[in-house]
Amino acid sequence: MRTVFYISDGTAITAEILGHAVLSQFDTPFDQITIPFVESVERAREVAEEINSHQSEENLPLVFHSIVDENIREIIAQSNCLAHDFLNTFVAPLEKQLGIKAEPTLHRTHGIANKAYSARIDAINYSLDNDDGITLKNLDDAEIILVGVSRCGKTPSSLYLAMQFGIATANYPFICQDMDALKLPQELKKHKHKIFGLTIDPHRLHDIRSQRRANSQYSSLRQCRLEVKEVEMLYRKERIPYIDTTKYSVEEITAKILDITGHKRTMF
Amino acid sequence: MRTVFYISDGTAITAEILGHAVLSQFDTPFDQITIPFVESVERAREVAEEINSHQSEENLPLVFHSIVDENIREIIAQSNCLAHDFLNTFVAPLEKQLGIKAEPTLHRTHGIANKAYSARIDAINYSLDNDDGITLKNLDDAEIILVGVSRCGKTPSSLYLAMQFGIATANYPFICQDMDALKLPQELKKHKHKIFGLTIDPHRLHDIRSQRRANSQYSSLRQCRLEVKEVEMLYRKERIPYIDTTKYSVEEITAKILDITGHKRTMF
Repeated sequence: MRTVFYISDGTAITAEILGHAVLSQFDTPFDQITIPFVESVERAREVAEEINSHQSEENLPLVFHSIVDENIREIIAQSNCLAHDFLNTFVAPLEKQLGIKAEPTLHRTHGIANKAYSARIDAINYSLDNDDGITLKNLDDAEIILVGVSRCGKTPSSLYLAMQFGIATANYPFICQDMDALKLPQELKKHKHKIFGLTIDPHRLHDIRSQRRANSQYSSLRQCRLEVKEVEMLYRKERIPYIDTTKYSVEEITAKILDITGHKRTMF
Repeated sequence: MRTVFYISDGTAITAEILGHAVLSQFDTPFDQITIPFVESVERAREVAEEINSHQSEENLPLVFHSIVDENIREIIAQSNCLAHDFLNTFVAPLEKQLGIKAEPTLHRTHGIANKAYSARIDAINYSLDNDDGITLKNLDDAEIILVGVSRCGKTPSSLYLAMQFGIATANYPFICQDMDALKLPQELKKHKHKIFGLTIDPHRLHDIRSQRRANSQYSSLRQCRLEVKEVEMLYRKERIPYIDTTKYSVEEITAKILDITGHKRTMF
């Protein structure tokens, strides 16, 4: 199997994401190694040796790197590998297009020194404090309120909206009383414009709930079918926008929610 | 201000992260617009018109795109913009290097169809269930146990380790009794090899706690100083590896923890 290195003088998260996006277009497995924080020439030489030790007779290792420091970048690029320089490939043309020089600054990509970062941490704390209908007191501060039946994906989606996009997200699980009356609880009604519904295929819900509480009424296919049917009726009746989470990842679910609601992402 | 578009036929998360990494090397502000899920030729034409409407006399908008579909990519690339194609720039050379053709598949980057995705969702659920020392029963299943004083960054770090890297992370806040005895609780001692400590500058801790409970003993600088001093003594006495979170983002903190502990990232 071909070895792939993701290397950076920072967290290497950018190098991993780019490398993965590119390699996912090839239907073959790779042996992946990530090496972050290559911050000195000595460390770069060690890493170059590790790269060299991974060449086989037929194959050179692939290297995806995003290295700000020029000296360190040179050492990595000159190892026995097929190097893909993510930063420089795009930075040089941009210097011309923008008419300004790049100022290579380490740790600016995933650093702490900006307002958006505090907004993201605040949003994470908000989403944790307002997970699973723990309290309905703080809904004034919510940007989005996710609703749905138990285990349809509300919590991971809330946290991802907070962590990746900086959106303060509360979530509320519908319980029997809500469904019997087929209406929104009074506290939620006041914030109806912020509400977004999730639904899920009953079979998938049955599988997920069975992992938690096997052979219970809660996890029975009959119960899952009933709850999903009722919740979708409620969404239509109240004209709540909603999506089916069954076939989507949290990245896809949350990107779709923002696309539909028109919220601006605050990533950086 | 120059307008930047991040465009994709998927979530556009990759385009945003890469675009941001490149632009962070330039010390100038940008007006950023993200357009995900451009999945049809009709939608692509609408987006191309929106791009065209953002050209000013001196400036063409920048476009960073990661578009799998060839027809859609063409339409975007031919709008009046300076286009940067993340995917193709690297895919074409890789086809030669690997000796195999790329098979453009949509939604493979942030899709659900892989084991690593389930591992990440399981890790998120684990980290939520084992946040803030809620229970110490499940520590057998933890890959990492973060410890530290209240509000030093344990919860966001635990969630990020789970969400981004698929690492099941519990966290435990030291309380007065632990600190008085200056030793690890018995339940944690059994799992000492998994424990990683966080510390923080007392002034920063004072600021953070004051936002929660102003003018309390809990948030007083005196109390913060005392707790931080004691927890660092405990780390040294018990030889627990630890890092200071004061100047780092969650991305940096968690990447450092994995680098020090040697845990393998499971991103995709």
